[in-house]
Amino acid sequence: MKKAWIISVGNEILDGRVVNTNLTWLGRRLTFLGFLVERGVAVRDDCEDIALTFSEAVTRADLVVSTGGLGPTFDDMTVLCAAKGLGLRVRLNEDALRMVREKYKSAGLELTEHRRKMAMLPEGARPLYNPVGTAPGVLLEVEGTIVVMLPGVPSEMKAIFEREVEPILRSRGPRVHVAERVLACRGVPESSAAPLIERVMKRHARVYIKSHPSGSELGKPVLRIYLTASGEDPEEAEFNVLSALRELEGLLREAGGKTEVSETWST
Amino acid sequence: MKKAWIISVGNEILDGRVVNTNLTWLGRRLTFLGFLVERGVAVRDDCEDIALTFSEAVTRADLVVSTGGLGPTFDDMTVLCAAKGLGLRVRLNEDALRMVREKYKSAGLELTEHRRKMAMLPEGARPLYNPVGTAPGVLLEVEGTIVVMLPGVPSEMKAIFEREVEPILRSRGPRVHVAERVLACRGVPESSAAPLIERVMKRHARVYIKSHPSGSELGKPVLRIYLTASGEDPEEAEFNVLSALRELEGLLREAGGKTEVSETWST
Repeated sequence: MKKAWIISVGNEILDGRVVNTNLTWLGRRLTFLGFLVERGVAVRDDCEDIALTFSEAVTRADLVVSTGGLGPTFDDMTVLCAAKGLGLRVRLNEDALRMVREKYKSAGLELTEHRRKMAMLPEGARPLYNPVGTAPGVLLEVEGTIVVMLPGVPSEMKAIFEREVEPILRSRGPRVHVAERVLACRGVPESSAAPLIERVMKRHARVYIKSHPSGSELGKPVLRIYLTASGEDPEEAEFNVLSALRELEGLLREAGGKTEVSETWST
Repeated sequence: MKKAWIISVGNEILDGRVVNTNLTWLGRRLTFLGFLVERGVAVRDDCEDIALTFSEAVTRADLVVSTGGLGPTFDDMTVLCAAKGLGLRVRLNEDALRMVREKYKSAGLELTEHRRKMAMLPEGARPLYNPVGTAPGVLLEVEGTIVVMLPGVPSEMKAIFEREVEPILRSRGPRVHVAERVLACRGVPESSAAPLIERVMKRHARVYIKSHPSGSELGKPVLRIYLTASGEDPEEAEFNVLSALRELEGLLREAGGKTEVSETWST
């Protein structure tokens, strides 16, 4: 399975001013595109830290997607510092400059130094059109690893990803299908469900099962149990997940649980 | 400034099934306790990955706090794998066993192998009482770095942190006060505000200013600008942040912006 790393740049994430919903959104999308999202790293607006994280990520992952730090302010430094970490020079990209210039021109604004900065790209990179905001995204390839840099504003990040990045990722490698069911169970503590889940996973090696407790372990335990199977054949993935689901549902009911298949996410 | 790393363990964060609000909550708390939260790392339920992340974290940070992976299921492996990464053996901790046993006893349940697992701690570690759930938190010190492991369920994580961890962190090192103001500004694109912010930051070296755009850069730009100052003297921090605030407000109004001081977070 191809591995992805997600890098989230910005003090606001680490100081707890902003919830990192970008990681959640990208994690879901990449998982359904067939990637194993191996790591999510949140770093501060610190050049050395950003450089270090990108250089580590490209040695470990097939795909690196970052969010944040593409804007016009002094602490928007993702492109410059990622390039530093990847050993690439940064230069004015003519395509990116055209994108940025036209955005501001249509609003009757000049191309200042701070706006021009958004057109500085690592050598060999391609700008990704931003249909919502002004800063283009960045796409490059480093020793076989695809590196994508997206803005931190969620609407801009999502628009660029869907329009420019997803088609590229779909065109590379096989389409992986993910079949998933969520089993809600009331009345069985997680510690009692644990051996039952293990038993089902042993018999269904291609299905991954994970329980998330809510309610309280000892008062009114509620578990949300995710069953996931993936593979190139959608019917096989679906069959695998349903077989495991039926078996686990039976065991939990025997243990006194009330179960319900509450949600379905499949691709 | 003392550095903190936050490690979030769990596939669900990286697959996008769960938003990592634990990072936001801990980031805010640690920032107000005077730590620089340098990095947030989300890793899968993968023993090698967990071990690697903890071993890197203790060499880089003064404080490492993890969430997730303390429960009774097979994929709750934080304690075992963190210990592996830190070169520590894991053994049954009598205090932890007492905590776990009493929890289940009061509910009329036996101490099964899966429940007993929650009392396995790295050598030298101390269990942290969990007033909400059953799995104790873990506290240890590795070459001068404090390592804290907390459950992933937010209510359990917060309860253990407030009751057991915060008092310890407060007792170590000086109390740092953080003064913060949020300036909302309408009508000035971020790229036009950027040089004004830089000017103010140059004149107020002890104040950190960061802008977050919402609205749209070219349509109806809205900026939330955070001004933060910290130091051992609360009045000085407050004075610094207010001086910078007044100056920036003046510059943004000159540039045609409508401003409002919308929120105050101070400690």
